[in-house]
Amino acid sequence: MSRPTIAGVARAAGVSVASVSRVLNGLPATEEMAERVRRAVDELGYVPDSRARSLKVGRTFQLTLAVADVGNPVYVTMMRAVEEVVSAAGYRLVVTTTGPEIVDEVALVRGMARGYADGLVISPLRVDDDLIKSIQECDVPVVVAGNVPAKAGVDTVRANSPKGMALAVEHLVSRGRRRIAFLNGPADTVPGEARAKGFADALRTHKLRAVAQVEAVDFTFAAGREGGRELLGGARDHRPAFDAVIAANDLLAVGLMHELVAADLAVPDDVALVGMDDSELAEQCFPTLTSVNLGSAERGRRAAELLLARIEDGERSPRRIVVHPSLSVRRST
Amino acid sequence: MSRPTIAGVARAAGVSVASVSRVLNGLPATEEMAERVRRAVDELGYVPDSRARSLKVGRTFQLTLAVADVGNPVYVTMMRAVEEVVSAAGYRLVVTTTGPEIVDEVALVRGMARGYADGLVISPLRVDDDLIKSIQECDVPVVVAGNVPAKAGVDTVRANSPKGMALAVEHLVSRGRRRIAFLNGPADTVPGEARAKGFADALRTHKLRAVAQVEAVDFTFAAGREGGRELLGGARDHRPAFDAVIAANDLLAVGLMHELVAADLAVPDDVALVGMDDSELAEQCFPTLTSVNLGSAERGRRAAELLLARIEDGERSPRRIVVHPSLSVRRST
Repeated sequence: MSRPTIAGVARAAGVSVASVSRVLNGLPATEEMAERVRRAVDELGYVPDSRARSLKVGRTFQLTLAVADVGNPVYVTMMRAVEEVVSAAGYRLVVTTTGPEIVDEVALVRGMARGYADGLVISPLRVDDDLIKSIQECDVPVVVAGNVPAKAGVDTVRANSPKGMALAVEHLVSRGRRRIAFLNGPADTVPGEARAKGFADALRTHKLRAVAQVEAVDFTFAAGREGGRELLGGARDHRPAFDAVIAANDLLAVGLMHELVAADLAVPDDVALVGMDDSELAEQCFPTLTSVNLGSAERGRRAAELLLARIEDGERSPRRIVVHPSLSVRRST
Repeated sequence: MSRPTIAGVARAAGVSVASVSRVLNGLPATEEMAERVRRAVDELGYVPDSRARSLKVGRTFQLTLAVADVGNPVYVTMMRAVEEVVSAAGYRLVVTTTGPEIVDEVALVRGMARGYADGLVISPLRVDDDLIKSIQECDVPVVVAGNVPAKAGVDTVRANSPKGMALAVEHLVSRGRRRIAFLNGPADTVPGEARAKGFADALRTHKLRAVAQVEAVDFTFAAGREGGRELLGGARDHRPAFDAVIAANDLLAVGLMHELVAADLAVPDDVALVGMDDSELAEQCFPTLTSVNLGSAERGRRAAELLLARIEDGERSPRRIVVHPSLSVRRST
């Protein structure tokens, strides 16, 4: 007897080969469909040798999203959006963490040569020529959710941080705040650099100057508390020099918020506070946080769409999409 | 000229075959090591056909962690712990979401037959015979971070919810609270069922009875707000019947916290609040949240260790590990 084939399974189950493939690949299917396929597989003794099959078909039906820190709620939003798009197209999304270092980002991209995914969306905190080269040489399509130079010829979807910063400053000024401080993340990261420049530009527009500026060690809650203490300095004994702070992301803002409370400063009465990312945390913290929505959900969606399009057509010219920001006003301002 | 081999690359680079494999698999390596390997690969024109190689070697150096909701901070803690253990052993961790439904959990486990990972840690919200069967039949080792019956013969690491619930009730009683309400998640989930039983048992121990009990539609922040409103009922006009609430996880607790504030009730003065999971959110919310630490980091570590041990030795007898809880007391009580 000849070795049973996937077509044989499809015939026995009375379904299409594509349906058999979906079930065998562990993609969502109705329970009835799955049951029919499994019964046919059992009856025929069909053994799906998946690695051999993927070698032939060249598809794993798996896509990877690589983010710097899976604990940052901004990536959760992005992840959910990417997942929605790719699972509608029949792919499973797996998420992996690169950490903040370029060497690990590069290792991840080179590792795609292992062939366990059909494509990659990477949101790198830091970018250099090595990373760009590894993306250009990658065996599978890569989309960058972030900023790389146009000459790299890579599909990118990025936020408009300077515009977002302008919205934040404008809003604070409209609330009567003039003494605005800035709690940034590391300025040698892509978002840190963009936000520092955006902040300086926005203040200039309003003929203001920064009354205080601190660079946190990373983009985490703990770094926000530490940066907050630095920003407050001796403020336990006197009023701080600022009446508003913009933080480079929501985690930093919430860390700072705890330090303001500890220093007996009321948000927003004494100090108004604006975060960036408009993540789930902005609604969960108290008071709720006004935050610049840099379009993380839309960036995720658009990046996923670019990746699917690139998988279909490897020859299309690279797209560079910029997603525009908006401001979600809540109780902290 | 014969086709270059991985051993040839190792010789040319002056490193071990294992080191070449690490670099080619995109696993962390020193920049110098990676450079030597890449130079040798270029010189010899070695083409690592990864899918073919994994077919032969049977190793992908990738492990999967499947969780119900990647946006729940309890899984972030678990994820970080799993990642630490498996990356020290030379594996990359990828995370995927199953959602709350059994049919999707089963699809994921069956999908492991695709062979893109060497093992799976799954933390299922719901368990039935189908899921257990799919785990038993799975082509790669599976460890359950959760509760499945002993007769399933599966490696498991689980929390001790009833003990955790006892700690929460004991603590509230020691703070003088006697009118304790419970905001549970869906009672047809593994954690929902265990926590409901634990709550009832703990109250009985202290000769108390529940003054109110609400089942939220899921374990999210939004469900916590909704459940909170139900719990409060007409409390805007009068004091609620309870002076303390235990929530089945931190997201539910923080959702409820917002409703308490909206109803002009002070935490902890009017209502003391205890969450479960002791996630990062418990420190980020305000007031900070007293929370039962169900050992998510330790469960992650132990599950990862069981998985690595099972990959080494498929014949060892299944282990069932229970991780003991502790209480992190913060400002909400």
